[in-house]
Formats: sequence, structure tokens, C-alpha cells
Amino acid sequence: MASFGFRPLDEKFLIEYIKATPSLSSKLGNQLDDLKIKEVGDGNLNFVFIVVGSAGSVVIKQALPYIRCIGESWPMTKERAYFEQRALIEHGRLCPDHVPEVYHFDRDMSLIGMRYLEPPHIILRKGLIAGIEYPLLAEHVSEYIARTLFCTSLIYRSTTEHKRAVAEFCGNVELCRLTEQVVFSDPYKVSQYNRCTSPYLDRDAEAVREDNILKLEVAELKSMFCERAQALIHGDLHTGSIMVTHDSTQVIDPEFAFYGPMGFDVGAFLGNLILAFFAQDGHVDQGNDRKTYKEWILRTIEETWNLFHKKFTALWDEHKNGPGEAYLPAIYNNPELQQLIQKKFMIDLFHDTLGFGAAKMIRRIVGVAHVEDFESITDASKRAACERQALEMAKMLLKERRKFHAITEVVSAIRQIHSQSS
Amino acid sequence: MASFGFRPLDEKFLIEYIKATPSLSSKLGNQLDDLKIKEVGDGNLNFVFIVVGSAGSVVIKQALPYIRCIGESWPMTKERAYFEQRALIEHGRLCPDHVPEVYHFDRDMSLIGMRYLEPPHIILRKGLIAGIEYPLLAEHVSEYIARTLFCTSLIYRSTTEHKRAVAEFCGNVELCRLTEQVVFSDPYKVSQYNRCTSPYLDRDAEAVREDNILKLEVAELKSMFCERAQALIHGDLHTGSIMVTHDSTQVIDPEFAFYGPMGFDVGAFLGNLILAFFAQDGHVDQGNDRKTYKEWILRTIEETWNLFHKKFTALWDEHKNGPGEAYLPAIYNNPELQQLIQKKFMIDLFHDTLGFGAAKMIRRIVGVAHVEDFESITDASKRAACERQALEMAKMLLKERRKFHAITEVVSAIRQIHSQSS
Repeated sequence: MASFGFRPLDEKFLIEYIKATPSLSSKLGNQLDDLKIKEVGDGNLNFVFIVVGSAGSVVIKQALPYIRCIGESWPMTKERAYFEQRALIEHGRLCPDHVPEVYHFDRDMSLIGMRYLEPPHIILRKGLIAGIEYPLLAEHVSEYIARTLFCTSLIYRSTTEHKRAVAEFCGNVELCRLTEQVVFSDPYKVSQYNRCTSPYLDRDAEAVREDNILKLEVAELKSMFCERAQALIHGDLHTGSIMVTHDSTQVIDPEFAFYGPMGFDVGAFLGNLILAFFAQDGHVDQGNDRKTYKEWILRTIEETWNLFHKKFTALWDEHKNGPGEAYLPAIYNNPELQQLIQKKFMIDLFHDTLGFGAAKMIRRIVGVAHVEDFESITDASKRAACERQALEMAKMLLKERRKFHAITEVVSAIRQIHSQSS
Repeated sequence: MASFGFRPLDEKFLIEYIKATPSLSSKLGNQLDDLKIKEVGDGNLNFVFIVVGSAGSVVIKQALPYIRCIGESWPMTKERAYFEQRALIEHGRLCPDHVPEVYHFDRDMSLIGMRYLEPPHIILRKGLIAGIEYPLLAEHVSEYIARTLFCTSLIYRSTTEHKRAVAEFCGNVELCRLTEQVVFSDPYKVSQYNRCTSPYLDRDAEAVREDNILKLEVAELKSMFCERAQALIHGDLHTGSIMVTHDSTQVIDPEFAFYGPMGFDVGAFLGNLILAFFAQDGHVDQGNDRKTYKEWILRTIEETWNLFHKKFTALWDEHKNGPGEAYLPAIYNNPELQQLIQKKFMIDLFHDTLGFGAAKMIRRIVGVAHVEDFESITDASKRAACERQALEMAKMLLKERRKFHAITEVVSAIRQIHSQSS
């Protein structure tokens, strides 16, 4: 359709827009007379319209010039929709089973038309709070991160392709700056945006701001985040960016996507699982002591890393004679060396993962944006006790990450901190 | 002047071009009737015309769609002139004393008009071969690398500025790919382009290709070169890219410039000084045993690093409350932490420097492009003996670089390898 320039959607205009847009109307089987429309977004930040007709459905997402940051509304370029759409398409091409299909994009309107993830899909974080097991979660998420990270890295790609893509995603700088601020900076200084479960954690938050070694380590991670264009990362891969059913796992909302360090995505997911683990004691009720569920979370942490490791190295083996320019076959085509290289790469990535995961945990406890896992624990002292364990785990992980060599050791450390405090 | 599109220069056209270009003719005091013109470039790769008139002088450099790689002529985008000019201007702004002024740039013509570095300026490498001491060399080069690297990094700059510049220099990808090939790949595999002083070094070159640990280490450096946008680096800072007199040091030819790891520039310079050191025994004659000169080179290596360290950290202290986003004052404004951060940063940079320096040494002995320091040693067996020491030093440095903590230890290792072999 002809471009309208930017105009915020409303229901009437939405229908008009869909009618004029074949890529959308065709997804509704061109049956546009009896559409059910529901706005489920956060109102003045993103519009998310679910559109269901008699012969199909779509979701229409429109970025508004703000971004949500729990309770705060920050001005933010609506150009983020462009990068979200680019990442959805690129990651969707690499991993179609776990990324919703994009039907339509309108840059002027900051509007993405995409697959409606129908019920019973829910946000994973809500499932974790509800204590629901997802037996395929580790399998699916490991598939998504292995494929998207491997295939957008120089192990798989030529320098020419890589630099072109890196340059393009440099344009998503405003979202990168937001991450820099809320993940790597604000939690380590006095900031009007920081919150914590007060007064219980006031002293803990202060301790974070006064911990020189922690600040040394987080500076290293921040530099890596800013400088290292390793792969096209999702950039915000927490458990709120994943929709799940028993059988399906779909990664959404990659508006923070850019070429950054792989460990930032892997760490975001594992770190948020660790947060979910430590939140469980706050969700115990008479019917459910959550013991079995906590074990499932720990198993999922372990399996996600192990499956990711397996899938990533399998992709590497499969494509070792491909066009990737990091490890040319003429140099690295001997089995012993190939193993050495992979081992070194994976242990470095493991340490990055633990570091970034820990940084993401810390910011969820003493920074601006908290997680529903903890927020939904209404008893503040109980919530603080859960958060304190998670914070202790995260601080240790950030400082001592290079001492860990296997995910089982991380799980043991989680158990140890949990049992000491319980 | 109106753009001509691309057209290779000749003397007649050059005069016409200068006449029509006020930024050039004014540098010649608009006295254009009696110009002395001399082409000193490599003919079919770059044209370099020295233009001297009665009231001024200029150099006109035109990139042709080839690049020199000792004895070979490779197709290469003439767009490199654009990035060369961008780097000259950016680095010149930051360090005007050591970068020749740009008077004029014509992108269609791939043409840069700049300051003529008048006699007695000569290429530093030729001075090192001739055994000439440059008492201000360490002072000047350390000033150049400290200012250009610090001021284009996130320690000094905002993320917004940084990402914009990174994106732009991603366009210089063809030159980056050339470095990847000739520095990080070809020396470690069988390649038609590789050369060595045969038959003396045949076995040594083979040993490089069979050394798994060396290949593991060089892979890490290659990834850092490709992925880490730390600062706007010159990209080819060997002793052939520096013109000197007793009092003046001028860095030229930054056509490989892009946002890469700082250690690549620092290492290039130090690595080439180490090559110059090991070449000295090949230049001994009855009148000069080069002993004093070798000591001067070692002192210059030591002073360059130490002065760089001093100047870089002084710039950091000076600008610690500036707009740089890597280490926000609100987090890092305590003296103890500031020292910790700087110490960690500088030791990491030191290790990168030694790694990249070593890689640049290796490629000059077993790769495509050799250095005149060795090439001018006519006795092949003598040349091979010099090269073998340098190669041994470089291999050790690449593998063991993390064990070094001060430049004095590197100098001691150079002395040790030299004395063992002499």
C-alpha cells in the first residue's frame, strides 16, 4: 500500500490498513468483514493488535517513540521496529521453528505484521512462575541460540557479509545504549532509576555499588558488549521474550538485536532461569512445595548449555569446509587441532555466558527493571530473601566465572547457595 | 572543481587538475607556471606525484585499482583512498604534529592532496637499515598511538559517536580481508603467495604450518582483529609507514584504517622494530659492528611502550570525567578502582600488542610480503640466520605472551634469543 508516513494505529485505521495491504489481508483469507481485534500491548509504548478472522489471524505490532522499562517510560526511537523486523527475518530464516513468521513490514509506520502465537502460548516467565514444566524448552532454546549465533558468526560467514551486517546493525545504537545503561552502569552507581526491595536489600544494593572487583569485572563485560561484533544476537533473551506451550517455543521481541557477544544471549536465558529458580520459594503454597519444579529448572539450565554446546559444535563440524573465514579449512582441517580450537572457543564462550548472565541477574534485583518472578512475591521480606540468594549467586558468578569449567559446577553452586540460605 | 569521474593521472592532466582546484593551487601560492613534478609511487598501484613550485609544494596521491604486495599485484578497490583520507583527517586532528595535513580529497578520482614531507624525510625502515638513530622516535610514535587510539575509543567517546564511526569504516572491508589473509592465514597454510629464504628456512616455514598451538593462538588474534571495534587503528603501522628526520616523525598511508584492536597498531610498530633489531647482524660492515645501534633499537622498543603507557593513562586521567562511556565517572571515580581498571586494561593491551606484533613478524618471514630490513641482506645464508632468530622470538612471543608483564622482559627475551644464536 502507499505509505501513510507514521500514524499511531487505532482499530478503524488498522482495518483500513489491512484491507490495503495484500500481505496481511491474504493471511486473513481476505475475509475482512468479521475481524476480532484486541489490543494487548502496553498502550503508549508498543501497540500489539491481535487480529483474528474466520479464515486466519495476524498480529500487528507498532513501535511508538517510547520504550517500557518497568514503571518508567523512556523516549526511544521507533526505528527499533526496523531492527526487530530484520532480526526476526534473519533468525527466522536460520531457525524457522522457533521464530514467528513476519508477513509484512512498514518502516514509516514502524509496523510489523507477523504470526499470531495462538493460545495456549504464554510468556515463559509466567509459566515459570506458575510452576509449569516445559519438557522441550532446553531442546528448543538451545536449537535457537546455536543456529542463530553460529550462522551469523565468522565461523560460518565471510568477512564481507559479516562487516556489511555489522555496519547495518550499528544503526540500532539507541537500544544498545539503553542496555549499557540499565545492565552495565546503573546498578553500580546511585541512579534515580534503581529500585530494590527496600529496606531489606538497601545494604545489598549499596554493597554492589561499593564492590571494586565487581565493577572491574562488569567493565570488562561492558566493553565486550560495546566492541565485540561476534554474532547477530537477540539482545534481550530473557524468559519474557519467549512464548511457550508444551510443544512449542517461540522467541519474540528482538528489538535490541545487533552484532554483539554470543554470551550475552546465552547468559540472558540462563541467568533468567537462575532467577526463576531462586524465586520458587516465594511461590510455595500448601499444594506445592516446588521441590520437583526447582529440580526441573536446574535440569533445564544444565541441558540448555549442554545441548547448546553439542548443537553449536555439530554445526561447526558440519560447516567446517564452508565459507566461514574465522577458521579456514586449509589451516584447521586436522581433527586434533579442530578439537583444540572448539574446546578453547566453547570455554571462552562459557565464561562470557556466566559473566553476562550474572550481570543480567544483578540488574534485575538492584536496577530499574525487575522481573515478575520476584515482583509477584507479595511478602516483601520473603521476596528479599529470595532476591538476596540470587544476588549472592550472581556476584560470585561474575567474579569467579573463569573458575567454572562445566555447567554442572554452576548448578552445584546454585544448590549450595540455596541450601545455605534456606 | 567539477568531478571528472575516475581518470588515472598523468603530468599534463595533473597540472590542469591543480589549476582547477583552489585548495591545491593555493598551497602552491597560485604560482603554477614553473612546477617541478616527480612521480615517486609504484606506478600501476598508487600514483604519488611530488609537486614543487616556487611558492609551495604538495603531494598528490592517487589510488589505482590494485595494491602492492611485494612482487604481486592484487586487484583492490580504489575506495581505499576514501578511508585513507578519513583516517588522515581524524588522526591528524588528534595528533597534528605527526600526521601530514590533507589539503584536498576527490572521491571519484581516489585522489588525496596533502603535505609534501620534504627532504631530509625518509622512510623509517630505510633509516633503520642505514643504522641511523632517531632520538625522538619513541616520544613521537608513542604520542601518535596514545592520542589516536585513546581518543577514538569508548574510554573517550560516546557509544553513539563510536557506532557511527565503526559502521562507516566497516566499508573498508576489502583491506581488512587482505590483512586477514596475509597476516593471519597464509603464513599458516600452503599458499602460492608465501615466500621464504629458501632452502634455509623451508623447514622453519613448514614448522609454522604444523604448529597447532601457534595456530590456536593466531586464530584468537584473527577473531579479535575481525570482531573487536576498539579504536580507529592505522591498520598497517610498520616502519615503512613512517617518515622521519632527526626531529620529525610523520605517519603516512593509513589505507588499512578501520575500527579494530589497539594492540594491532602498537604491535605492528614494536614487531617491526624487533625485525629491524634481528636484521642488524646482516648489515654489519668493517666500519660498523652495529652493537651500539642494536642497543638503541632495544631502548626504543622499551621507551615506546613505556611512553605509550604513560601518555595513554595520562589522557585517561585527564579525561576521566569526559563524555567517554566505557568507564562512567559515577562508577569509577575512586582512585583505587581507577588504578585497578587502568592496570587491567594496560596489561590486556600489552598482551594483545605482543600477540599482534609477533603475528606481524612471522608473516614478514614466511608470508607474501617481506621487509627490506632482511631483503637487503644479499647473502642468503646470513639473511636466513637473522630471520630464524626473529621467527623464533615471534613464535615464543605469540605462544607465551601472557607470561610477560613488562616490556623489559620482552627486551631480555630478545637479547637471550640473539645471544644464543650469535
